[in-house]
Amino acid sequence: MTGTTQDDYTDRYARRVRGMTTSEIRALFAVASRPEVVSLAGGSPYIAALPLDAVGEMLNQLAAEQGAQSLQYGIGQGTVELRERICEVMALSGISGASPDDVVVTVGGQQALDLLARLFLDPGDVVLAEGPSYVGALGVFQAAQAQVKHVPMDDEGLIPAALEEAIAAVERSGRKAKFLYTIPTFQNPAGVTLTDERREQVLDICERAGLLVVEDDPYGMLSFEEEAPRPLRARRREGVFYVSTFSKTFAPGLRVGWILAPHAVREKLVMMSEANVLCPSAFAQGAVTQYLSTMPWQEQIKVYREIYRERRDAMLGALRDLMPPGTTWTHPTGGLFVWATLPEGLDSKAMMPRAIAARVAYVPGTGFYADGTGRSNMRLNFSFSSPERIREGIRRLSGVMEQELAMRAVFGSSFASSRRRGTAAADAPGPDLA
Amino acid sequence: MTGTTQDDYTDRYARRVRGMTTSEIRALFAVASRPEVVSLAGGSPYIAALPLDAVGEMLNQLAAEQGAQSLQYGIGQGTVELRERICEVMALSGISGASPDDVVVTVGGQQALDLLARLFLDPGDVVLAEGPSYVGALGVFQAAQAQVKHVPMDDEGLIPAALEEAIAAVERSGRKAKFLYTIPTFQNPAGVTLTDERREQVLDICERAGLLVVEDDPYGMLSFEEEAPRPLRARRREGVFYVSTFSKTFAPGLRVGWILAPHAVREKLVMMSEANVLCPSAFAQGAVTQYLSTMPWQEQIKVYREIYRERRDAMLGALRDLMPPGTTWTHPTGGLFVWATLPEGLDSKAMMPRAIAARVAYVPGTGFYADGTGRSNMRLNFSFSSPERIREGIRRLSGVMEQELAMRAVFGSSFASSRRRGTAAADAPGPDLA
Repeated sequence: MTGTTQDDYTDRYARRVRGMTTSEIRALFAVASRPEVVSLAGGSPYIAALPLDAVGEMLNQLAAEQGAQSLQYGIGQGTVELRERICEVMALSGISGASPDDVVVTVGGQQALDLLARLFLDPGDVVLAEGPSYVGALGVFQAAQAQVKHVPMDDEGLIPAALEEAIAAVERSGRKAKFLYTIPTFQNPAGVTLTDERREQVLDICERAGLLVVEDDPYGMLSFEEEAPRPLRARRREGVFYVSTFSKTFAPGLRVGWILAPHAVREKLVMMSEANVLCPSAFAQGAVTQYLSTMPWQEQIKVYREIYRERRDAMLGALRDLMPPGTTWTHPTGGLFVWATLPEGLDSKAMMPRAIAARVAYVPGTGFYADGTGRSNMRLNFSFSSPERIREGIRRLSGVMEQELAMRAVFGSSFASSRRRGTAAADAPGPDLA
Repeated sequence: MTGTTQDDYTDRYARRVRGMTTSEIRALFAVASRPEVVSLAGGSPYIAALPLDAVGEMLNQLAAEQGAQSLQYGIGQGTVELRERICEVMALSGISGASPDDVVVTVGGQQALDLLARLFLDPGDVVLAEGPSYVGALGVFQAAQAQVKHVPMDDEGLIPAALEEAIAAVERSGRKAKFLYTIPTFQNPAGVTLTDERREQVLDICERAGLLVVEDDPYGMLSFEEEAPRPLRARRREGVFYVSTFSKTFAPGLRVGWILAPHAVREKLVMMSEANVLCPSAFAQGAVTQYLSTMPWQEQIKVYREIYRERRDAMLGALRDLMPPGTTWTHPTGGLFVWATLPEGLDSKAMMPRAIAARVAYVPGTGFYADGTGRSNMRLNFSFSSPERIREGIRRLSGVMEQELAMRAVFGSSFASSRRRGTAAADAPGPDLA
């Protein structure tokens, strides 16, 4: 994890690699996976809630009875059986009439984002995205040598007037914004949801500006109260690329996601995916197909909702009871995350080593901005740890913050670490740290 | 598969996408998967030879007993358990002393090649590769907007003098060759193996020229006679990136491959892989780890060797008995493929529709060259079909060739289709067509 070895290959790297560095923060997260640390850092679902015995039996049959297909190569687009099931899943969210022919199965939602970036982004192109936004998407855009321009949110999600202003600013700069990347429902990391009214406004603005929309919807089915507003893709067939995944509704360990794309584009995406991974895993696709066809998967989602609602309540309650004055946070109605804003003068990145020493981990807000801002924020996950662990984690965290505030009262802010800018991805943990 | 819909997104694509087109050939391969067609086109292992019941039981346990890990996110580099097993597998091939810390688990060998391309290739860079070479690698280099310069082979593999000449020619043109991509053992598609003596020569040439080597070794364990020569990576630790996969030794449907990279580079590869797929499937990695740890996998490889040797013998025998005079072919001592050269005047690409009509499929040689050459060649697969089917396929193929030769004797060569150049990938089937 340290990587201090002399790198003799530096002069040979492609240009896209040159900005890529790991940071001291990343090394800290390795420590955060120790059992004594309450990690509120990851984004892992609570897999232990799955009926693992039944899943095992299902996978047994998939290999023993269909192994000649399920363990063989498949086609680049993904099996037609899974693409049909995916269309049924999307119909439950309000996306009706999608054709399996327009679905491309991907290696998790991450590969979907990467394929879209490779399809549309040349070096120097601009992507608009919520500020803050998903760290994995920022990594994709950085690898594509694109520039991310963040658009602010409030409690109702992306602010339409700010989107208009951002589009105009990019135009004035003579650059080209290729698409808006948005997670409208139970946003990662902010935990807010774009309202119905704003969904229409955002779509109208993008349509007028000729801006494509990449809608990332991993959490839409994980609502704790009323159903989430319909996806953007349910409202417009053209110009919207819909991305989702089975990582949060079934299991991330299978790496199965998808893109619903306009027909003409779908073929290009398949060719890009073949150049990237040849084909998605036939076995993983078979597993998801069987799960959706033979097991009570919608009941299982209700189980997840109940568990996560209880944990969200535990987190919000603990924040309310324990956080120092001046701290604020979002109130998610679904998904996995709360986004907290620290009292004036605290620095979430500089505070990380002290938090780890106090046996609690979070992701500093800097991980979710391409421009190095976010030091007054942190992302807190509530899907993985038990309510008791969450409360204990928040208690430890508030202790660290109280200490920081006391230090600051004595010494001023100069003890904070330097503001050297890293890459966003370097300020976030690897995918496994829950 | 037709993709004739109007594409309103054309103006928005990134530059790397613009050369990407599918061809009429690709649509033909869809027909080739019908059961009445003997397909010698694919590259699929004979999965039915696996002990599928035992594999099923193993996967059952992996989910039921270790599901909380195996169905969860994993780390970007891949599990340490699998990386340790991979080092043991490489040691069997002669690569000793590799550290699990320098292994990056990938989504099949394909993602390994793509990551290396993204790491090293800027648009316009040159890659040297055998001519012919693996179609999937050519797709990767094309997506990276690199230029492939082919280096010819003979029965002893890559010709060292030709490699020196190619390096000099690239230098004279003022461009930069970033690496040599090579499949030294049981080459795809040519079926030839680089001799021991030439391995040393090729390494010396690359070392002198400061050229990195990407060694792709999916077939090295599938030898039919004596053991294959030791990999290039077994001879040089620096400057050689070793890529392999479990697709041919266990099951392609799991999509598990790897890169062994110099330590300093390994960290960059992990970050690129995280931006691409977040992490490789924890379940697929667990499956391979269990397979290597608890099942007689080396015995299973001997089973594959026996089956493929018998099928290779069937193919070589049928070619000798049935091919029209003037046809030549390679004599592989391992792997999955024979490479045939047609009699003067025959065109493997133009002949494809007639071959499909005669219920036999192959891959035209044009799929394996980035420069549109290869019309006098075809790749024939012997791993998937039974000896009887192989003999019947070659019988049908020779019938088509006899007809073509008769037509040519009457009408001359003008009846051949136009020489419009497509992309190599467009002349090859999808990954599933065996």
